[in-house]
Amino acid sequence: VDLVQKALNNDRLAIAKLLTLAESQDAGFLHASSILFQHSGKGFRIGITGAPGTGKSTLTAKLALAFRALDKTVAIIAVDPSSPFSGGALLGDRIRMRELSGDKGIFIRSMASRGALGGIARTTADAAMVFDAAGFDIILIETVGAGQSEVEIAALVHTVLVVESPGLGDEIQAIKAGILEIADILVINKADLPGVLRTENALMSAFHTSKKHAFRHHSDVETTGSHAPVKEDEGWQVPILRTIALSNEGLIPVREAILSHQTYLLENGYWSEKEKQRLRFEFEEHLRELFFQHWQQMHSEAEQADLMRQLYERKISPQHLALKQVESE
Amino acid sequence: VDLVQKALNNDRLAIAKLLTLAESQDAGFLHASSILFQHSGKGFRIGITGAPGTGKSTLTAKLALAFRALDKTVAIIAVDPSSPFSGGALLGDRIRMRELSGDKGIFIRSMASRGALGGIARTTADAAMVFDAAGFDIILIETVGAGQSEVEIAALVHTVLVVESPGLGDEIQAIKAGILEIADILVINKADLPGVLRTENALMSAFHTSKKHAFRHHSDVETTGSHAPVKEDEGWQVPILRTIALSNEGLIPVREAILSHQTYLLENGYWSEKEKQRLRFEFEEHLRELFFQHWQQMHSEAEQADLMRQLYERKISPQHLALKQVESE
Repeated sequence: VDLVQKALNNDRLAIAKLLTLAESQDAGFLHASSILFQHSGKGFRIGITGAPGTGKSTLTAKLALAFRALDKTVAIIAVDPSSPFSGGALLGDRIRMRELSGDKGIFIRSMASRGALGGIARTTADAAMVFDAAGFDIILIETVGAGQSEVEIAALVHTVLVVESPGLGDEIQAIKAGILEIADILVINKADLPGVLRTENALMSAFHTSKKHAFRHHSDVETTGSHAPVKEDEGWQVPILRTIALSNEGLIPVREAILSHQTYLLENGYWSEKEKQRLRFEFEEHLRELFFQHWQQMHSEAEQADLMRQLYERKISPQHLALKQVESE
Repeated sequence: VDLVQKALNNDRLAIAKLLTLAESQDAGFLHASSILFQHSGKGFRIGITGAPGTGKSTLTAKLALAFRALDKTVAIIAVDPSSPFSGGALLGDRIRMRELSGDKGIFIRSMASRGALGGIARTTADAAMVFDAAGFDIILIETVGAGQSEVEIAALVHTVLVVESPGLGDEIQAIKAGILEIADILVINKADLPGVLRTENALMSAFHTSKKHAFRHHSDVETTGSHAPVKEDEGWQVPILRTIALSNEGLIPVREAILSHQTYLLENGYWSEKEKQRLRFEFEEHLRELFFQHWQQMHSEAEQADLMRQLYERKISPQHLALKQVESE
């Protein structure tokens, strides 16, 4: 409680402690979250995603500096789903740290996915809430790779930056990995590498094709749950921008595009719509997990072992066993 | 039921229909799954993962042909989490199809992640069960990117191939994306590209560092759930192999390494241990989802809207609202 009060006053040590509680989904965090939640809702959440090797981390660090130049405070959450074992935080973070450390207006945190399957979205959302409540203006969420985690990150932020770079294998792969549909802004980093024009053209055409797809399938998506994207596509033209983050080129236009997107969201009512979708998404993630934990607590190890034995002996399928458990609650 | 019987007799149309039911998590599939499950458990499940641009799809196709040369039947599940909108299946698949089509011993299926967050693992597991029950000897599961989905795929297969390629950005990124810990076999594809030795060395050293990490953190991982990896690391030396899949170079050694790993698992009792972990994982995934669906059914749209309103007005946090729902069950 004292911890929460300190964090609300931007005490760095208190923030760090709360982030650790959030990451471990400690019971103490549940308590803190009630107060933190009431003070959150003002931070601008920006997701930065793309394949390994595109220079995402460098771009994220430089963007943080660009926002600092406008006197905005910046939190960086590096989601590192790399490994359930290593606990994340490798060399890249240390490199970034060196450049950004010493600035009180910046806070960097690496999150590891650990062994907790399905838990990244939940812990990331909670970390973002801590930063939001502590008063950070900008919350950059950097995430690795092209996978399901991107879709989840998109559900947690206001604006999605997708980072590409020239010559990352053949174009088919780039499109296939296609996180393009979630992009609000496309950045081609390492724009000094050969093939930048080819990448730009490939992205341009892939992007337009996929956006059409997005419209065609909207009704499908809605039937699968409450995660349908805000239908704001009509009014926002996704910019494709070139940067060389390492030598500070092209960063101001990216920053301005991000701020334009914020204005766009605010002026058209999409900001609060996204907020609502995000809160519902967070609620549902917690609900799934808590139901599961509740089930575990209600069944002794011996009971669970007995159920598993039925499974291993192929007397009942995983689907049916799960259904029986839910029905007997 | 008739459909299931046909699928068990390797009727391709019946298999395709069941896969569609599995993908949409149709109620009809739940029924079919009981019988399918009893006939599954013989297929050798192999996960193939790595960043976009490493040539994974080509490698997968060529490996399928290499297994066909041993007269084994092969199913390919291409998990394509690219987009919740596009429904997957882009150019890459068509290219593969052309080379493999016409062979009755091969079946290719693309899975899209659609809007269903957290659903990839479940639908992939169900698709694998269909192929397994239908009698396919080898089930190749190809998955894009470096993210959480990899960890989930690792939970679903016997053997994990991690594909890298030379020059994919700086080494730091490659390590950071580090799905190395889940690798049973490492493949450096596109080995004719410059920098292959550098990549090999970087992987070698990164690999040894991370394996040490894996041991150090084992106890941590176990506390987070029942997804702790089988501790088989002591006995298996992870091979690092070079291929140029496009021109058929180095594929036989990869195939043989996969078969060696299978022998290793079988001889040391790890095969059935992995099987048990997988079934428990599948059960838990279904349990989470079914509890959530049950909650949705128990609450009318009006009730849900009312709860969401409390959330949007910040009267209660997502965590607390979820907890209250679970407690009131």
